[in-house]
Amino acid sequence: MPAGVAVARDLVGPATEAAINRLTPRVRRVAAYHYGLADAQGNPVRVGSGKALRPALALLSARAAGVAPERGVSAAVAVELVHNFSLLHDDIMDGDTERRHRPTAWTVFGVGAAILAGDAMLALANDLLLEDTAPGGLWAARCLSTAVQRLIAGQGEDLAFEERGDVTLAECIEMAGDKTAALMACACTIGAVHVGAAPELAMGLAEFGGHVGLAFQLTDDLLGIWGAPEVTGKPVRADLRARKKSLPVVAALTSGAPEAPELRALLAREDDLSEDELLQAADLIVAAGGKAWAEKEADDRLAAAAASLDGIGIPADVRAEFIAIAEFITARQW
Amino acid sequence: MPAGVAVARDLVGPATEAAINRLTPRVRRVAAYHYGLADAQGNPVRVGSGKALRPALALLSARAAGVAPERGVSAAVAVELVHNFSLLHDDIMDGDTERRHRPTAWTVFGVGAAILAGDAMLALANDLLLEDTAPGGLWAARCLSTAVQRLIAGQGEDLAFEERGDVTLAECIEMAGDKTAALMACACTIGAVHVGAAPELAMGLAEFGGHVGLAFQLTDDLLGIWGAPEVTGKPVRADLRARKKSLPVVAALTSGAPEAPELRALLAREDDLSEDELLQAADLIVAAGGKAWAEKEADDRLAAAAASLDGIGIPADVRAEFIAIAEFITARQW
Repeated sequence: MPAGVAVARDLVGPATEAAINRLTPRVRRVAAYHYGLADAQGNPVRVGSGKALRPALALLSARAAGVAPERGVSAAVAVELVHNFSLLHDDIMDGDTERRHRPTAWTVFGVGAAILAGDAMLALANDLLLEDTAPGGLWAARCLSTAVQRLIAGQGEDLAFEERGDVTLAECIEMAGDKTAALMACACTIGAVHVGAAPELAMGLAEFGGHVGLAFQLTDDLLGIWGAPEVTGKPVRADLRARKKSLPVVAALTSGAPEAPELRALLAREDDLSEDELLQAADLIVAAGGKAWAEKEADDRLAAAAASLDGIGIPADVRAEFIAIAEFITARQW
Repeated sequence: MPAGVAVARDLVGPATEAAINRLTPRVRRVAAYHYGLADAQGNPVRVGSGKALRPALALLSARAAGVAPERGVSAAVAVELVHNFSLLHDDIMDGDTERRHRPTAWTVFGVGAAILAGDAMLALANDLLLEDTAPGGLWAARCLSTAVQRLIAGQGEDLAFEERGDVTLAECIEMAGDKTAALMACACTIGAVHVGAAPELAMGLAEFGGHVGLAFQLTDDLLGIWGAPEVTGKPVRADLRARKKSLPVVAALTSGAPEAPELRALLAREDDLSEDELLQAADLIVAAGGKAWAEKEADDRLAAAAASLDGIGIPADVRAEFIAIAEFITARQW
């Protein structure tokens, strides 16, 4: 794990806890559970609460603007709150019952309490940016607000895709851009924007984050089919079981390859697929070029991300840490 | 209906529609349906979309600061978006199937789509304030953000009260202050804050709105028990059917009157109450003084609201319109 991620956990962890403690009790217990800070009864625990990648990127973003990482903390907490707001609500919408090896919040506290806790986390993220006296507080809030709108648009597209058989690869990439890359781009920019960085710097960092976000989604999609359960925390080929229209799947379906119709027929089946059939579907995606396309696209995005950091005047060590995080979250573990 | 309400509809209606049209299609259709702008298939309609009270108050708030009502439009749209975000999510949490004589959005589009549309409306409200170049954009966003947090806290308390038999009147008043009065206070202030009004003016307006909000909640609770179905759009004694711990009910239960235990036993029954029993419960609330207390408290709050507008230097016609709206929304229709 890159050094920046551990630093982010140390700096952002206590600030996140302080922010959550500002919430009203009924909402706080759901948020604390979701964050892995408390069990279902409200007793303090420490369980895996995500990798703190976005906070790490937000702190780096402050450093990119020439200030100490400490000054990026409230922006980092805000981005992570938005990320977790979306996880909390998405788990309800998608009917997911497990996250980070624990029952999802809505299964523990009910749909109503989970909706409310998500709402509170979104509003709190906003509060943190608006109450901070940093020069770019308003701009940071706008940066986050734009990302939230794209996040919501992306989730809306994702839900709509489930009901459609004709999703194009371009639509799928756009959806990933909204659902995943927009908040990543915000994380890479917001720390700098918050302290009043120049637009050129902010734009370069946003471009970096957008490319990294897409490479991350491609990697996540590849892991969802070919990742080992120890790595993903989910059953093998989980995304195929759920017939998820992930990027490698749509690339294969729309490839024009001779294997595409057979794959389409398999994924369109109403009943559960056997282990053999899931393996067969994964092999058809490989044969139709879906896996190779996704791997190459992830590589290209990573290269484009690195290029985005050229000539925008950020310190060499900050650049190296950005790249290290980008490589870490797109590592091929299959 | 006070003149200010019709003016608000004319000014704020088109701006609200323009704001909703910015949403992504899947989210937009849910928001448009909820607002009464479209039917379930997305065809344009015009049905009752609420009374636009908060927008009317927000426009008056701008006028209180000495500017034209037009300058309060984005703040008015933002407040109304937050109000509707909370209705959309509360309907899911409370399992309500009808609002404004139509099926609630979640029953038409599903829980997931309704959650997402609410999220988008909350984020959009924020966008509108942050992107506006008015001098107090940041402060207006903070004013709204604080109201949102209190709204969420109030809904959390409301949900918690359902599971408790020992709710005090003080807790109940605090809950109403959070759930209803905070956004009303925000509506009465935000137009002035947005154009950079002095703190004394903003505080006087917020105090007015807080009192009006509580008087409104008391009136709504009285209507929920003694209001005619033609007025409320709900079955007679709907709140008693639902065993809602509204202010007159809690006032009666905690009055120490001899009728209180019988009322408590009746409302604690697991099975549905007959029409006769509902009538009996309503009579017990009267006998225990719950109705008289609520009526007096509403009157007192209305008087306190009027007093809040003294000496803060607002034009006489604006003051008169504020009072007219306050009286309109607390009129005794039982």
